[in-house]
Order: sequence, then C-alpha cells, then structure tokens
Amino acid sequence: MSPAPVDDPPRGHIIPIGGAEDRHDDRTILRAIVELAGGSDARIAILPTASRMKDTGARYVEVFDELGVADAVALPLAERSDGEREGYVRELERATAIFLTGGDQLRLSTILGGTTVFKTIRRRNAEGVHVAGTSAGAAIVPEHMLAGGGSGPTPRFTLAQLAPGLGLTNRIVVDQHFSERDRLGRLLTAISLNPFLIGLGIDEDTAAFIGPDDVLEVVGSGAVTVVDPSEIVHNSVAEARTGDPVSMLGLRVHLLAAGARYDLVDRMASTA
Amino acid sequence: MSPAPVDDPPRGHIIPIGGAEDRHDDRTILRAIVELAGGSDARIAILPTASRMKDTGARYVEVFDELGVADAVALPLAERSDGEREGYVRELERATAIFLTGGDQLRLSTILGGTTVFKTIRRRNAEGVHVAGTSAGAAIVPEHMLAGGGSGPTPRFTLAQLAPGLGLTNRIVVDQHFSERDRLGRLLTAISLNPFLIGLGIDEDTAAFIGPDDVLEVVGSGAVTVVDPSEIVHNSVAEARTGDPVSMLGLRVHLLAAGARYDLVDRMASTA
Repeated sequence: MSPAPVDDPPRGHIIPIGGAEDRHDDRTILRAIVELAGGSDARIAILPTASRMKDTGARYVEVFDELGVADAVALPLAERSDGEREGYVRELERATAIFLTGGDQLRLSTILGGTTVFKTIRRRNAEGVHVAGTSAGAAIVPEHMLAGGGSGPTPRFTLAQLAPGLGLTNRIVVDQHFSERDRLGRLLTAISLNPFLIGLGIDEDTAAFIGPDDVLEVVGSGAVTVVDPSEIVHNSVAEARTGDPVSMLGLRVHLLAAGARYDLVDRMASTA
Repeated sequence: MSPAPVDDPPRGHIIPIGGAEDRHDDRTILRAIVELAGGSDARIAILPTASRMKDTGARYVEVFDELGVADAVALPLAERSDGEREGYVRELERATAIFLTGGDQLRLSTILGGTTVFKTIRRRNAEGVHVAGTSAGAAIVPEHMLAGGGSGPTPRFTLAQLAPGLGLTNRIVVDQHFSERDRLGRLLTAISLNPFLIGLGIDEDTAAFIGPDDVLEVVGSGAVTVVDPSEIVHNSVAEARTGDPVSMLGLRVHLLAAGARYDLVDRMASTA
C-alpha cells in the first residue's frame, strides 16, 4: 500500500474518498486507513465540520472503535472561533491520522479556511500524518476545490464552481459520488479552466491513496477516473458563454479499479 | 519603492495593475516598472496571449521603447504548443521583467496553464524577475484567479467564478477595473469561499507593487481596496442558493491611494 518514502520526513498519505464508503461490512477503505495510521495504536482525529448532523462525529468514532482504534476522537468545530481552540489543535498534534467527514465542502472552507486548525492540518500532513476525507472532505483536500456545480457528461462554462481548499496538493482537483451523480462534465469543466490540473473523479466506496511520492493507488469497490488535460491541443472554455458546451481535444483518460496506480508526476497509469 | 530584500535571492516584485494604465502622458505605473527592471538596461518580455488583437504586443513594445527600454520584445504565444517553444523560454530566461497584457484571463490560463512558459515565469519570479500584469494579466497572477462574474456591490453565491491562475502568490485574489465596473460584490463573493484569501480590488490606472517581503505599495491615479476576511465571525455562503445575497460579518477594509502600503503577512495598512 504505502510506497517508499521520498522525503525526510515523508509527507503523510492524502486520501480522498468518493463518499458512501462501507462502514458496516468489509470496511476496506476505513480498514486501510487504520492500518496506515498504526493499527490498534492509531490516534484518529475526526472533523465533522462539513456535516450539519450532530451525530456524524460520534458515528465515525464508533466505526473506528469497531476496527480496533481505541483512540479516535471527534472535534466538533462548528464556527470560526473553534478553529483557534487549543484543545482541538492539541488533538491534531497527537493524531496519526486526520479524517474529514462528508457534508458541504463550503462549510469546511468557510468555517476553517485560514484558521490555526487548518494550518495545523497542513503542517501535520507535511510531517507525515495521513489525512483522509470522504465526499465533501475529499473535495477540500487540494488547493483548488470543486465547490459545486451541475450534472451531465458534457463540460459547460459555469457547470463547475471552484473555491480555495485545504491545499495539501495543488496537482489535482477531486470530484466525488462521481459515477453515481453523473459528474464527468463538471470535472472536465474544472480542468478546462487551467490544464495544469489533473482531474480525479472518485466513485462511492472508492478511495485514492496518494503516497508521499505522489503515486496514487485505488482502494474500494468502484473506480477512480483520472483525466489528464496536459496534452490537449484545443479547449474552447475561454470563448464559451454560460451554458455553452466546451470543446476539449486530446484529453487522456484512465479508469482505475482497485489496485491500479497513477503517478501524478509522470502522469503514467499502471495496474497492480 | 522597493522594500528591503528578505530572501536570498529575493523574489521579484509581483505587480497587478487594474487595467487602462496611462500609456501616453505621465505613464507613472509603466515608468515605475521600467525603473525596477533596470531602467534603460531593462529587458522586458511581453506576453499578449490574453488579447485577441494582433497588435497588442507591438503597442507595448512601442510604449516601453518611448520609456527608454531598447530591449522589449513581444512573445506572440497563441496556442498551447507555443508554450513549449525554446525561443520564447530563452527570452524569459534573459528578461529582467515580464509583462502580461489585458484581454481574457481564461485565454492565459487555458493556453499557458501547465506549459514550460508558465513554469519558467514562476521560477524566474522566484529568482528575482519582476512580473507585472494589467487587467486579465493582473487577475491571473495569484494561485486563485477571478475568472469572471457579475457586477454590483452585494456578494451573491455564483457571482464570482474562480479558476487556477499562474500561482505567484496564494495570499490574494485580484479584481480589476474595480470601481469602474462596480465589482465589490464579486470580490467579496470570491473571498467568502475561503477566508484565508485577501481580496485586492484594483482601480484602472492603479497598481499594487508587491515586494519580496509581501508588502504592497500603491502606485497610480486610483485606489486599491483591500478586503481582509480573516476576522469574520459569520459568513452565509455555504447556505446561500444561486443568486441569494451572502451575509459577511466582521470584514476589515482599507482604501489605499498612491503611496499607501499594506502588509499581506501582518495584515496591517499604513500611509506613506
């Protein structure tokens, strides 16, 4: 699972999950996170900020407990002043993995953007702590976050809304519930805006485990769609008006199921 | 003008201009750029890529020539393959300043995003070369680029479209033609999405000269509006629907005319 470290210390894994990961049966994705984070010695800090439901944090504490993690704690950050609380920062300082739940990614960015809690997560990931997020928690992981948009397979100007995210990597933009909610068009729209980005469309119950060497490995029951626009020869988004379809010629696309890998630096895909 | 260098080597200045800078009379802004870049020894590379007009590059060559710069050259990058041309990269390697003209910022990001030309501009700025951009060329300077949107004073969800920019700094988001086109609402919308950003609304014929120490100084006939959302206590953008006005409580705003400064790290404003 974990590729050889390339930095000293190696960055922690970055783990966007497409939402609706299995929490009752095999729990393949959550189990792989626990293993990376130290197994029964793992210390997992859960941020339920994206969610408007009160029990989201407690539910994940329960699931991690069932997976043998005695030290999982939910940090109920709900307003901006919570992002400065010393107690929460202390939990992040001692965690071996940090987990961002689903909900609305704009709640995460507006409540936590620029706070000490977000800065601490960035630093801890650089120091080797793993950061996983599901659904909204997956969208916010990169510097450029898909904040919202419409459905359908065709890219159209204004189909995707971007916002600044947590910034653990700036190579990718992440969409989630990808096949289930027909989001190819909005992922393509997002990467049409600047082809330095690589688009990751992540299905439900599927995760991209991005190692410190920027190689991702797919875990889970669905697929990760990788869209690499670096070789496109034409892209009409600068000419398109609201609602117009956008031409994009020369995209490279990979459909990756469990065990397949993709190198975000070399832009090369491989099977297990 | 130029604050004391703090790095070794110090980064070059980053100079977003609000568009429609004077090119015929005092030419205060362009003259200040020439002075920073070495006066009559300056070597200025001009990228007219944002513009659809054929003579945009040649016009700036003429203006810089009138200001005593014999070595100003326009690089007519018009499609993605141009972003890999060795001749253009060579000009950027020898330039003391790089100038991005106005037009459409999505032309810049879609044609040059991820190309060797853009990577070279990033590296050259880190090495000490000054990068100035006017209008569209100003919008693309940061990591988070205001790509488009509507007018009016009130922030509304979807009033601002963000896209990935050139990435010389990730502290700011820039809007231009700011007073002239009534763009306060869209700048506020952009920073509402993640309050780690500082918004700069730059009037026409006005520039923010951002030094290597991240202190900006205003040059020109208008004002720079600085909006700092770091102390906001409430922000409703995550709850807003398309077109709804967004509440933002606790913004700090500075109106800076020529000579005034703002420290992007300490978030403190001062007069000359």
